[in-house]
Formats: sequence, structure tokens, C-alpha cells
Amino acid sequence: MSKAFLEDLTPGRRFTSDARAIVDAASIKQFAAEFDRQPFHLDEATARPTFFKELVASGWHTAAVTMRLLVETLPLSHGIIGNGVDELRWPRPVRPGDTLRVECEVIDVKESRTYPSRGLVRVRMTTLNQDDQPVQIMVANLMAFRRTKGAA
Amino acid sequence: MSKAFLEDLTPGRRFTSDARAIVDAASIKQFAAEFDRQPFHLDEATARPTFFKELVASGWHTAAVTMRLLVETLPLSHGIIGNGVDELRWPRPVRPGDTLRVECEVIDVKESRTYPSRGLVRVRMTTLNQDDQPVQIMVANLMAFRRTKGAA
Repeated sequence: MSKAFLEDLTPGRRFTSDARAIVDAASIKQFAAEFDRQPFHLDEATARPTFFKELVASGWHTAAVTMRLLVETLPLSHGIIGNGVDELRWPRPVRPGDTLRVECEVIDVKESRTYPSRGLVRVRMTTLNQDDQPVQIMVANLMAFRRTKGAA
Repeated sequence: MSKAFLEDLTPGRRFTSDARAIVDAASIKQFAAEFDRQPFHLDEATARPTFFKELVASGWHTAAVTMRLLVETLPLSHGIIGNGVDELRWPRPVRPGDTLRVECEVIDVKESRTYPSRGLVRVRMTTLNQDDQPVQIMVANLMAFRRTKGAA
């Protein structure tokens, strides 16, 4: 995967990859035990009387797994450095056994006025399950760096 | 901590707690190894030539630790169920040894038209380090439930 610089990132450009992540019950419970100790994330039985009625992954687990997939999908030259998320939605929960993948689309590019070698790239990143249903939609601004600094 | 229902959540109401989380180098590397395999999150030496110049926590690690603190801070009756994040910023990185805490403020409340027993509570959640500097700012809509359903 060749590195993508600011010059390569034009609105409409899409990045997808073969990367997949299986989210099983054990990893859902493990993440929840460390970061999100709520009954609907910890155990099938404690999830039953809750709003979700079944074990579902923490949204932050979905976000973290999405990041793992993004690192394999978006080949930004200096890495994926977020400058803030403007929208983060979980339209449906991730359930044990779901297989996730991610699709990215550049929706805007802004050159930096302060740092000529940099810019901000606005990207929509959609995390999909095995049935092609979105489980997470995120719009974020990422830092991008110019290939040639100040070349005439 | 008594449970908070929709009726208790008025704009301006603040929730803080004594909950603290120490983020050490080992946990930064462990989270990164699983979810964010980038040089600035994995190791002090590989971080040096990068944009950050030092080991810093993944923003998703900060978000996950924030969730752990929120579960101890925001006593919503049915748990913390996010209906989407509208803003997520990491104004400065979390570094090894930082101690984090969280402050929450209700900024808006909307009753649901579809479900009379529910509403959406807009909350600003600020994660602060030991020097009272914000390391994460998040504005999200959370589900809240009425104490009394359909009482006259």
C-alpha cells in the first residue's frame, strides 16, 4: 500500500481494504470489563432485562476495532492523526460473531494556512458488518502532509 | 449514588465524581497493540521521529478510559446509552503517568415524541488530566428514561 500525501487526497477518493475484524463474545466482555462495565456489555444474562435485551459491544469497542481496521485501510504518510471527530453514530449494535470492515471516503480537503506542509482531510469512515449494514459512521478531520515541502 | 431519571436532568446540572484513572505506559502500549498499531502509540523509541515525538495514548484509549470514568460519574437510571456523539476533540495527548478524571454538564434535554417514557439528554463531558488541562472534550446525546411512565 503506497503512502498517501495531501496531494493524493481529493474529495471523492475512496479507500477500502480487505481487512476484517471478528468481534466475538469474549472480546466484547473483555473490553467491557476494562472500559465499560454496564450489564448489556458484560454478560448475556445481565443483558437480558436491559434496553438492548442481549449482549452487545460497547460503542467504544466498535470505535477501537474500527481504528484497527483504519490503520490497515487509510495509508496516510505520517499515520492517522485525528484532529477531532465531528460526528460519530452507532446506527445498530455490534453483536457477538459480527465481522466488521471499513470504507473511507474523502469529503473535503483544507490546506493549512499556518503550516504550508500540512492540511486537514475530512473523511467519512463507515464501519459495516457482514450483512453490509453500517454499525458505525464517523466523520473526522485527519492531518495530512504534503509530499514536497515548498517546492516551486 | 442515586439514579438519575429524565426529570432530574436539567440544563446546567453537573456531575463530577472522585473516580480517577491512571494511564501508564504499559496500558498505552497494550491498547495500541490491540487497536491502534501506530509508532507514536506503541513504543517510546518508535515514537521519537513521529509528529508526536514521544509516546502518547491513542485517542480511542482516552475515549475508552473516559467511558470507564463516566460509568462511575453519570448515574443514569438505565445506564449510559449513547445516541451519537456530535463533537469529540483531543486538545492535548494523554502521556504515560497521566491521571484522568471527568466532568459532565447537561446542556440540553429533549423529550421523545415517539416514546413518551424517554428523552435525549445532551451532555458535555470533559476529561481532564492531573494539571486540570482538558485532554478530551465530547458532546453527546444520551438516552434518559422517565421515572413515572404516563402518570397524569
